[in-house]
Amino acid sequence: MIRVGVLTVSDRSARGERVDLGGPAVVEAVLARLPGASVVERAVVADDRPAITARLVEWVDALGLDLVLTTGGTGFAPRDVTPEATLDVIERLAPGLAEAMRADSLRVTPHALLSRAVAGIRGRTLIVNLPGSPKGAAENLAAIAPVLPHAIELLRESPDAEQHHR
Amino acid sequence: MIRVGVLTVSDRSARGERVDLGGPAVVEAVLARLPGASVVERAVVADDRPAITARLVEWVDALGLDLVLTTGGTGFAPRDVTPEATLDVIERLAPGLAEAMRADSLRVTPHALLSRAVAGIRGRTLIVNLPGSPKGAAENLAAIAPVLPHAIELLRESPDAEQHHR
Amino acid sequence: MIRVGVLTVSDRSARGERVDLGGPAVVEAVLARLPGASVVERAVVADDRPAITARLVEWVDALGLDLVLTTGGTGFAPRDVTPEATLDVIERLAPGLAEAMRADSLRVTPHALLSRAVAGIRGRTLIVNLPGSPKGAAENLAAIAPVLPHAIELLRESPDAEQHHR
Repeated sequence: MIRVGVLTVSDRSARGERVDLGGPAVVEAVLARLPGASVVERAVVADDRPAITARLVEWVDALGLDLVLTTGGTGFAPRDVTPEATLDVIERLAPGLAEAMRADSLRVTPHALLSRAVAGIRGRTLIVNLPGSPKGAAENLAAIAPVLPHAIELLRESPDAEQHHR
Repeated sequence: MIRVGVLTVSDRSARGERVDLGGPAVVEAVLARLPGASVVERAVVADDRPAITARLVEWVDALGLDLVLTTGGTGFAPRDVTPEATLDVIERLAPGLAEAMRADSLRVTPHALLSRAVAGIRGRTLIVNLPGSPKGAAENLAAIAPVLPHAIELLRESPDAEQHHR
Repeated sequence: MIRVGVLTVSDRSARGERVDLGGPAVVEAVLARLPGASVVERAVVADDRPAITARLVEWVDALGLDLVLTTGGTGFAPRDVTPEATLDVIERLAPGLAEAMRADSLRVTPHALLSRAVAGIRGRTLIVNLPGSPKGAAENLAAIAPVLPHAIELLRESPDAEQHHR
């Protein structure tokens, strides 16, 4: 089973001023696109770099989730710092995932090139930033979902089980 | 109004040994591609990392420009350090802009993949590296111009005006 | 002449438990795709960050190779650290090369987006990560081979020989 955490990053949702739409959209997209995956953690945090990193570190180091999907905070507004918080905690970058999500979104809207999303690995957990818009988040997850089970399988590999892969 | 600075990075132009062609080409491209934008600062600096960063910091921190476009110094020659100088000063990366410019240029020439251009945000200013060739610089600006007004609008957003965007 | 080093990164091949297939595939691809290039150094190291960086630094700083191609260690397995070792030693990133290799591989397999390969410059040497699979390594080298001679020519440029290029 793939254990997934979905983290909504939004000042207004964290303050209870707006219903969180991104998080539920990502949960639904996980169910639709990742057979065998289960969302075991859900949270909403403010657009605050230490608050985001604290939650990511907890979900990786204490809970050992396989996959953490964030939604929100990847744009150009002054408070958008989800990529920076993610870069603070990841140990290895996975640039191909972010490139593929942007390339895929570009077919829908030119504004896709304003996504600053990053993806990377901490320990044996893959962390991927998705946009805050429910539609954009679901589309981006769909773009990379086909390779996520293999990615997570590789992360679980024992150091002795090296095999060549692309 | 979008206030733009255009910075030519070239040893020879800085020494007066060659006429700056990249800068004027970028100014012309701004007029053609960015309605409502005005080039309020122009300068030529050498391919020198501290000289480039000093000018970028001045234009962002002291003058508060909305957009800084550099031209030159993004290639493989030993003195090409514009991306490194830009990385020194930006606080948030905007990788989608650089990826999109390279992908667009690849349709014109395979040498586009040698562009090391970066784009990112310092404060409320977007900084984008363009190539030194006048034709390449104009083409690259054209590739991202459609989304720049929205990007700059988001950078100006007050922290309380959070809205979801992609 | 373009002087090339080919570095295989693999725990098992370093321990002699598996025949190195990636290295010979890259050597063959160099002969086929890079006229005028000669593989002057070959080595196999474990998936160990200090071991990889030591070899890269030796080949660049002591031997002054023009091009170093690594094969292996760019994936998601816990021991895959070739990109991190490469980032440790390069002074200037060349992101367009890695983006182009992934975009090209995506036409063959969706798993291409799991490649974490990076490319960059140390001194006057270009270092490029290729995947561990012989087929993938050869395909990726083919994708960027047309621009490598020009890239290496630019790296050799004297600081006074500045010319505009894209």
